[in-house]
Amino acid sequence: MVGKVQKKREDLRVKLIDIAEARVIAGGISAVRARDLAAEAGCAVGAIYNVFGDLNDLIMQVNARTFKRLGAQVSAAVAEEQGRPVDQLIAMSHAYLHFARDNTPAWRTLFDLEVSSEDDVPAWYLEELQKLFALIAAPLVRIFPELGREDVILMTRGLFSSVHGIVLLGLEKRISAVPTDQLEHMISLVFNHLSSKNSKS
Amino acid sequence: MVGKVQKKREDLRVKLIDIAEARVIAGGISAVRARDLAAEAGCAVGAIYNVFGDLNDLIMQVNARTFKRLGAQVSAAVAEEQGRPVDQLIAMSHAYLHFARDNTPAWRTLFDLEVSSEDDVPAWYLEELQKLFALIAAPLVRIFPELGREDVILMTRGLFSSVHGIVLLGLEKRISAVPTDQLEHMISLVFNHLSSKNSKS
Repeated sequence: MVGKVQKKREDLRVKLIDIAEARVIAGGISAVRARDLAAEAGCAVGAIYNVFGDLNDLIMQVNARTFKRLGAQVSAAVAEEQGRPVDQLIAMSHAYLHFARDNTPAWRTLFDLEVSSEDDVPAWYLEELQKLFALIAAPLVRIFPELGREDVILMTRGLFSSVHGIVLLGLEKRISAVPTDQLEHMISLVFNHLSSKNSKS
Repeated sequence: MVGKVQKKREDLRVKLIDIAEARVIAGGISAVRARDLAAEAGCAVGAIYNVFGDLNDLIMQVNARTFKRLGAQVSAAVAEEQGRPVDQLIAMSHAYLHFARDNTPAWRTLFDLEVSSEDDVPAWYLEELQKLFALIAAPLVRIFPELGREDVILMTRGLFSSVHGIVLLGLEKRISAVPTDQLEHMISLVFNHLSSKNSKS
């Protein structure tokens, strides 16, 4: 009997994540509303909160799926690129750009989800992030063998944030959306001018 | 008589921008609500829309002031830095970081304002942006004399977006807010490893 209740609960959990994911993919975070989810899942609104602490918990599960898809795309891009380490960084950055362009609402939801404190970020989420950062750090230490461990961490995060900024402002229609091929070239330009020569710090 | 009406209208216009600016500085774009503005200005809600097309127009005026303050801070930073061109880029980036840190709600409002199309961005706004980009481009062409005109434009925008991304993700408490001195170092690291040597494109 307990097993049956447990099973029903788990089924509802997966069903709600599936529904929320479809909504995030179509319309981003604002498309996830408890009443709509309940109607589509055929359950009471209160049942959602029996399974998830709040809607943020549910959206965090959707983000986990998005993050996995993003990670797979970036991993595949770097695996295919056998050239210079800087070309590997460029290939990963282009993969990030393409993912963001083709999955804009889901990608934005990765960053739109409000977390009130670091403690709210689950450990498995941080692990996924670390995996992505490790992919960036590998070619980085080959390009900059002189960097200390702390600086590798800062530079990894700095370059990820740089590419994120280029993609974010580039995809926006605010001032002028930049065509994808120009954004690719912009990323290549910045990375191709990264060098351990000429550095003083 | 017409002059008096005109004067009253202009007074209300400035008053509303002042009130909206104080609200943006304190709480960002969501702190600007027509009813509150009217109450504080002592006018009817409808009077706001006699002076501004909509609230976005009003917030655009606030953003103009924010942009001017930002531009002044960045200009001052580069004027003080007489070193290598890369040090000028770093000084401007640090000034951008400090402005964003010290004026977070107003800075975010620069990017939070929705514009439905490029035509909604006033010409004077684009001019201010071009002035900022010109400050970045000047040291850039000294570092990379081999870059063509088109690539200078792309690289300028790319580097601005990079710094924006570092500041944006660095100031957020999402995963881990990075202390200012570490963000400064992160920016310096990236720029100090920019070089025209080792580039192939």
